[in-house]
Amino acid sequence: MEKTEQKQVIPYQRKVQYYETDQMGIVHHSNYIRWMEEARVDFLGQIGIPYDEIEKTGVIIPVLSASCEYKVAFRYGDTFLIEIEGDKFTQVRMSLRYKIYDEKKTVLKAEGSTSHCFLDKNMKPVRLKKDFPGIYEKLALHFGESIHC
Amino acid sequence: MEKTEQKQVIPYQRKVQYYETDQMGIVHHSNYIRWMEEARVDFLGQIGIPYDEIEKTGVIIPVLSASCEYKVAFRYGDTFLIEIEGDKFTQVRMSLRYKIYDEKKTVLKAEGSTSHCFLDKNMKPVRLKKDFPGIYEKLALHFGESIHC
Amino acid sequence: MEKTEQKQVIPYQRKVQYYETDQMGIVHHSNYIRWMEEARVDFLGQIGIPYDEIEKTGVIIPVLSASCEYKVAFRYGDTFLIEIEGDKFTQVRMSLRYKIYDEKKTVLKAEGSTSHCFLDKNMKPVRLKKDFPGIYEKLALHFGESIHC
Amino acid sequence: MEKTEQKQVIPYQRKVQYYETDQMGIVHHSNYIRWMEEARVDFLGQIGIPYDEIEKTGVIIPVLSASCEYKVAFRYGDTFLIEIEGDKFTQVRMSLRYKIYDEKKTVLKAEGSTSHCFLDKNMKPVRLKKDFPGIYEKLALHFGESIHC
Repeated sequence: MEKTEQKQVIPYQRKVQYYETDQMGIVHHSNYIRWMEEARVDFLGQIGIPYDEIEKTGVIIPVLSASCEYKVAFRYGDTFLIEIEGDKFTQVRMSLRYKIYDEKKTVLKAEGSTSHCFLDKNMKPVRLKKDFPGIYEKLALHFGESIHC
Repeated sequence: MEKTEQKQVIPYQRKVQYYETDQMGIVHHSNYIRWMEEARVDFLGQIGIPYDEIEKTGVIIPVLSASCEYKVAFRYGDTFLIEIEGDKFTQVRMSLRYKIYDEKKTVLKAEGSTSHCFLDKNMKPVRLKKDFPGIYEKLALHFGESIHC
Repeated sequence: MEKTEQKQVIPYQRKVQYYETDQMGIVHHSNYIRWMEEARVDFLGQIGIPYDEIEKTGVIIPVLSASCEYKVAFRYGDTFLIEIEGDKFTQVRMSLRYKIYDEKKTVLKAEGSTSHCFLDKNMKPVRLKKDFPGIYEKLALHFGESIHC
Repeated sequence: MEKTEQKQVIPYQRKVQYYETDQMGIVHHSNYIRWMEEARVDFLGQIGIPYDEIEKTGVIIPVLSASCEYKVAFRYGDTFLIEIEGDKFTQVRMSLRYKIYDEKKTVLKAEGSTSHCFLDKNMKPVRLKKDFPGIYEKLALHFGESIHC
């Protein structure tokens, strides 16, 4: 596989919403888990497999685990920027790492991770390479061989 | 229909959650719309038609409109209490009114309303009385004839 | 006041988030109330009074009422577009109307409204024209005289 | 310290809300992070330090990290039950573990953890034992000495 074919993924960014703050005056920590989902589906769209189309083909990618370490709080008025990198990728699972920065990428404000499996609509595991090679190949192309289990 | 058979519905109440506050130090206004849903499904459960079972029988009750008037803010540490009354009820539609009080019911802190239709899983209207008489009768029993359109 | 100075406001738009859907397979109705907030603060930013700066000057603009009429559901994969227009504007209150369209603005999928007052940080009313003329003038410039109460 | 004085904490439980589901037909994973907060503040209330009163005394307990492992999905109609146990507790930090079960506690559906620090309203660390002995002692009484760092 030629790593040179790998598309460069643009980091995901948007402004903090008012309704994402809490009475501490900072973004409620649960929203970072949602931000990682936003960044993840944006990433999947950028590598050619929009998540709404994935679900229409019959694959769902539920979350097996999620974690976040909060270093510096986000406040209303801030913009966040998320970089994703693949951690592990197999035919049946995928795990991702997230770095959450301020808009100018000068401060690493949080770090997170999620892991996922590939299921069909009846919540049964699918073998991505065999059953959905189009999805498999785009993920494999992006993640590269080094992180295949 | 014997109005005397109508069950007395217990108001819905629970504590405000921390994640429902915003940086104004009060509950974010969007949550009242969710609270009305909580009160509505609790009400449906109390009159014998739990909403999870309604959906399993093939009826969904989407929201056609929702409104809320905010009079006195809720804060973290507060408990809210919601009273529901039927406004209109027909074979194809239902509208409800909500009074949102403090725990002791001394202050009317907000008032709201929602209207709904009855659809099948393909988002097509159902005739409740004909197609789902069990659900129809429980709603009719509770709402009474006076509010039938 | 010269209406010709009024800035043209660009409609607010973004993609539906996965976490905004519910098990009906559509966007949960409570999120439209949040979308209207997103559009409102975007609008305020466009006319020169970013909401985070408004709050820093000591003015908060809480919601007195909110309503939404749901016509056609949004689904995951959709983009929504919101147009705002001023309904009423006085020194002490403001009300807004929202039209929520699909991305191409071919279908009016929902309509909403909110009303607001202007308070200081102790939740006391402020006289916007006298106490915060900079904010007042930008709102007055945009809304025009015709809708002053 | 007499471990025998430690109060027995009742597990936190409530029904899943409709708005907590997503289009997979299960509870969206971000809500488990919120559920852990609900369980945590309920726990603090049970051991005599209601979180709203803690914040009024001038201490905030922000989240430094949060994680959740999802084993079996929750669906609408389910009730969840959360057991909390202290993991580590010092004058400046606290970490907690969460076991999330079905209502009858027959299936361990998820496990999570959070860690926290103790700050004042200016986001500066406080020495809990010295500055807020009332809060410190109740936590120490519950957690026991074995988990002090």
